[in-house]
Amino acid sequence: MIRTIFWKNDTVVLIDQNALPLAERYVACKSYKEVIFCIKDLTVRGAPAIGVAAAMGAALGASKLPSLSPEKFRQKFFAICDEIAQARPTARNLFWALERMKKVADLKHGESQSKLVRTLITEAKRICSEDIEINRKMGKNGSPLFADGDNILTHCNAGALATAGYGTALGVIRAACEQGKKLHVYADETRPVLQGARLTAWELKKEKIPCTLITDNMAGFLMCQGKIDKIIVGADRIAANGDTANKIGTYSLAVLARAHHIPFYIAAPVSTIDFSLKTGEGIPIEERKSEEVTHFSGVCSAPGKIKVYNPAFDVTPARLITAIITEKGILQKPFHIAIAGLK
Amino acid sequence: MIRTIFWKNDTVVLIDQNALPLAERYVACKSYKEVIFCIKDLTVRGAPAIGVAAAMGAALGASKLPSLSPEKFRQKFFAICDEIAQARPTARNLFWALERMKKVADLKHGESQSKLVRTLITEAKRICSEDIEINRKMGKNGSPLFADGDNILTHCNAGALATAGYGTALGVIRAACEQGKKLHVYADETRPVLQGARLTAWELKKEKIPCTLITDNMAGFLMCQGKIDKIIVGADRIAANGDTANKIGTYSLAVLARAHHIPFYIAAPVSTIDFSLKTGEGIPIEERKSEEVTHFSGVCSAPGKIKVYNPAFDVTPARLITAIITEKGILQKPFHIAIAGLK
Repeated sequence: MIRTIFWKNDTVVLIDQNALPLAERYVACKSYKEVIFCIKDLTVRGAPAIGVAAAMGAALGASKLPSLSPEKFRQKFFAICDEIAQARPTARNLFWALERMKKVADLKHGESQSKLVRTLITEAKRICSEDIEINRKMGKNGSPLFADGDNILTHCNAGALATAGYGTALGVIRAACEQGKKLHVYADETRPVLQGARLTAWELKKEKIPCTLITDNMAGFLMCQGKIDKIIVGADRIAANGDTANKIGTYSLAVLARAHHIPFYIAAPVSTIDFSLKTGEGIPIEERKSEEVTHFSGVCSAPGKIKVYNPAFDVTPARLITAIITEKGILQKPFHIAIAGLK
Repeated sequence: MIRTIFWKNDTVVLIDQNALPLAERYVACKSYKEVIFCIKDLTVRGAPAIGVAAAMGAALGASKLPSLSPEKFRQKFFAICDEIAQARPTARNLFWALERMKKVADLKHGESQSKLVRTLITEAKRICSEDIEINRKMGKNGSPLFADGDNILTHCNAGALATAGYGTALGVIRAACEQGKKLHVYADETRPVLQGARLTAWELKKEKIPCTLITDNMAGFLMCQGKIDKIIVGADRIAANGDTANKIGTYSLAVLARAHHIPFYIAAPVSTIDFSLKTGEGIPIEERKSEEVTHFSGVCSAPGKIKVYNPAFDVTPARLITAIITEKGILQKPFHIAIAGLK
């Protein structure tokens, strides 16, 4: 099994997702600042994995604090959490994990600092192991939606690498394959960062799940040719009405899926749901540096000083989503009622 | 003005489109075999430019033939044309240009070989200069469709580089700008070969037409945000009913345009129309090597031995096309009647 993130000898160890698939190497973060850097530069990416990294980063930050009064410790720990929360704006799991860590710190307020730090480390590890369990449940819940022989399209990477392990969208595909169904996956390469080509293709190849790599702009033509039976993707943030932010390009796929009468599924843990947001309009969309678009694997592919628009995510309206697969079951329409039932 | 292709000192000179935008250099083909190689490896690409290159390649081949009987000359010249016709399968203009060259050879059959060769060279040069004239007419015809302040999306490169000069889709944009309209162009980077990032962005920058580069998968989100007023692209082959083969990804854009009520225009010369094909189903779609998807500029971005599907074109059904801009005027629906009127 692919290990995306783990705690080892007072470091947070991350598989370096920028180096994949050419090199399989790990980065050991010795400070929470290094964890922030790794979230920002996409060494670790994928909403659930970012959540786990944030929790472990917060625990790491707590463990490095000097001896302080309980009040001062709380203040410093919360400041660390708030700093980590600035790393990236869109993925809900980042804020969810940090809120959970803060809650533990508050619950155990007054305990000895060393004990509290141990509790925080335990909590971060728990968020990590729970994430894998959640993904397995999601896989079990979602796998009946996929039939033997299905050709499935996915976008970006919502696999083991996007989580603590097993994956969300790819977890559902894994679970269906474990049940003996023969599936074939078309992986969108997912420009600009190529998470599909670099990560999804790598994961599926490793697991011997048949996979064909395509460029993002081919997906519509494949749908038109009848080559796609179902689409499944992950999510970075889901509003209370089911509107879903996910990797840029997801919205186009959802529109194309609707035009071709193809089911379009989201797979995400409940921690991705932002109950405070009524609709997707309130989801902040990160814009990233233009070099991601003007360069390709470090090689420049555009004229110098060209203007670039580089939103990392888009929002797919609930009406284009067939169902949302979670660890608590499959959410059906109307999503605002199904989602309210999860609170 | 950008010179894409010209005849000089008994060579066919092509701007090296694989080297752009990093280097602006020219390749001089001394034999028709070199021209075939340049068409295959995309040194020259774009349906009208391929047509001009094919005609010049045929003339070059004719000029290198030894002294032959008129019958033998005809046979050898036709064999050269047939060999050039094998270079790429989709662009109609390739076959159109070669048929025109063959027709001239037949018309002048029996003339002295040196005179016939001169006539063939003149005809190839005429196809080249006519192409620029045709594009200017297309620009004049199409420009009223675009209003001051429009944000226009284009895909691939249908510019000066895709033609002998001025361009088809970009020609229309150029013409509108020459009339004083302020337009802004969003250029899809157009994976896998990145003609949008490498060529369209370069051309527009050179002409000081405001341009923003995006990845292909961003187009839908931009439409959803109301950032696109109109879409215009070129064509590689148009069937008698208006179904249009163009760069892979065009079909997705047309579906997205329809979903967002955005006009979707094709700009192409009449030589791109294949009157013999009733619908787009009969258009051969070239599949290219997987390295185009797994690599960029020699850098690998996917795991080794991953399966790839790499169709270079797709077919947009006539029903998704708002109008087809040609040098003979703007074709409106029903296209099969408008197209039949051109014969």
